[in-house]
Amino acid sequence: MKTIDGRAIAKTIREEAGNRAEKLRSEGVVPTLAVVVPTKDEATAWYVRQIARSADKLDIQCRIVELDDPGRNEVVQALQELSADASVHGIICQTPLPEGVALADVAQHIVRHKDIDGANPESLGRLAAGLGSWAPSTAAASVEILKRTGTELAGKRVAVIGRSTVVGKPAALLLVNESATVTVCHSKTRELARVCQEADILIAAVGRAEMVKNDYIKPGAVVVDVGTNPTADGGLVGDVDFDSAASVAGAVTPVPGGVGPVTTGLLLLHAVEAAEQQL
Amino acid sequence: MKTIDGRAIAKTIREEAGNRAEKLRSEGVVPTLAVVVPTKDEATAWYVRQIARSADKLDIQCRIVELDDPGRNEVVQALQELSADASVHGIICQTPLPEGVALADVAQHIVRHKDIDGANPESLGRLAAGLGSWAPSTAAASVEILKRTGTELAGKRVAVIGRSTVVGKPAALLLVNESATVTVCHSKTRELARVCQEADILIAAVGRAEMVKNDYIKPGAVVVDVGTNPTADGGLVGDVDFDSAASVAGAVTPVPGGVGPVTTGLLLLHAVEAAEQQL
Repeated sequence: MKTIDGRAIAKTIREEAGNRAEKLRSEGVVPTLAVVVPTKDEATAWYVRQIARSADKLDIQCRIVELDDPGRNEVVQALQELSADASVHGIICQTPLPEGVALADVAQHIVRHKDIDGANPESLGRLAAGLGSWAPSTAAASVEILKRTGTELAGKRVAVIGRSTVVGKPAALLLVNESATVTVCHSKTRELARVCQEADILIAAVGRAEMVKNDYIKPGAVVVDVGTNPTADGGLVGDVDFDSAASVAGAVTPVPGGVGPVTTGLLLLHAVEAAEQQL
Repeated sequence: MKTIDGRAIAKTIREEAGNRAEKLRSEGVVPTLAVVVPTKDEATAWYVRQIARSADKLDIQCRIVELDDPGRNEVVQALQELSADASVHGIICQTPLPEGVALADVAQHIVRHKDIDGANPESLGRLAAGLGSWAPSTAAASVEILKRTGTELAGKRVAVIGRSTVVGKPAALLLVNESATVTVCHSKTRELARVCQEADILIAAVGRAEMVKNDYIKPGAVVVDVGTNPTADGGLVGDVDFDSAASVAGAVTPVPGGVGPVTTGLLLLHAVEAAEQQL
């Protein structure tokens, strides 16, 4: 059993982003991303600091736009202003959003060529249609991990647990585009463990701590754990019971140190790509 | 084994469209759809005449815009003009398009609230995100047939053969939204017959005449045949070998007389819905 080292993969991605950012700077462009933070949520604040710190190390500018108890209109306005601001190349909208406001709704106001976290439904549609767009970074990270570990995708069976607009659906679309045979599972799936056991690759994005045990896993399968569930002692656990999974799987991503750092790395890479495209 | 009567389902849908069209006319609105025809292809011409004739019977106006050997720009221009024309409520872009031109590309120029055939990638993204949009009519028809025959979808396993932007992917997204457990299969799927045999519902959208035989089908399963393959004698056959499938399935849609008429009926209903929304 191999523990997939997300931090090492992220390092490679950040190096690539850093090299390309340096090239942009030598051409007089300061690659800049903006993060709209519509919440005082602590976990969100921690995550945004992570992005800002990583960006800083790569000489990518990160502008944090904190909104104090906003309504839908304030979020939309912030996204519209950043969309119109030529000095900003990439825009991220953090969650949680105000009660009753959906990310896909407000994200329609992120102009497509700056939508580096694939939050605008138009980006998702372009992804499905095979036109250029960025996928939501967590979904992109799940697939990137498979690719960078040399996991064959074409013709392989993949089960995705979770059907959210930000992870499950875009991950499924990305994997179908890679010629995998993809099954989308969710809370209404019957005999979930048995369905998952058919899969050569399992993506867990369900949001329930350590729900996925060894009986979900085909011997030798690759397991990607997208979950980030807070523990009582302030730590994080994934959707996969790591030790149980490790007894059957061929490879598993840990939490922390798996999908998370790759997600942050990809956001920075996407920001640089956006800046390159806006040259 | 039940043969699903697509013509009867289509009749009900057309009656609903007709009643709502009449109401619109009584309010002074003439529901109008426009069909851009960028080809001299005979099968396309036949299909467009079908739409026009059905529309005519329901007092829905159908404007046919024939383009003579157009390039990409002429198609885009026609879609832009119709998008801007307040007397047109719904726009359909027929295929085949000029060599090297993708429907999803030109369809970006169909304004969203007139995109009654779900061709603009933005519509597909909104579908995935659970925001309002019309699905491509063939995909919508497949799911509508299941609903109108009382086929339970939540928790059921569905296999979709085909991953096109106009049928396979939107059908899969619609069915995931209905809480089915959906597997997307395609040309790279290994042991295709065995994978399909896991499914309570099988959607065949692969474009190969009578490829799906009884060994693809779980006993009692519902089979929806999206295929329309021309035969040497000028007829049509589906992707499913009807007699072979009928020996195992619980219900099968025939070709012709299955998905086809429901698709046309839904286009008219979508046109009326678009006109209502633009009141």
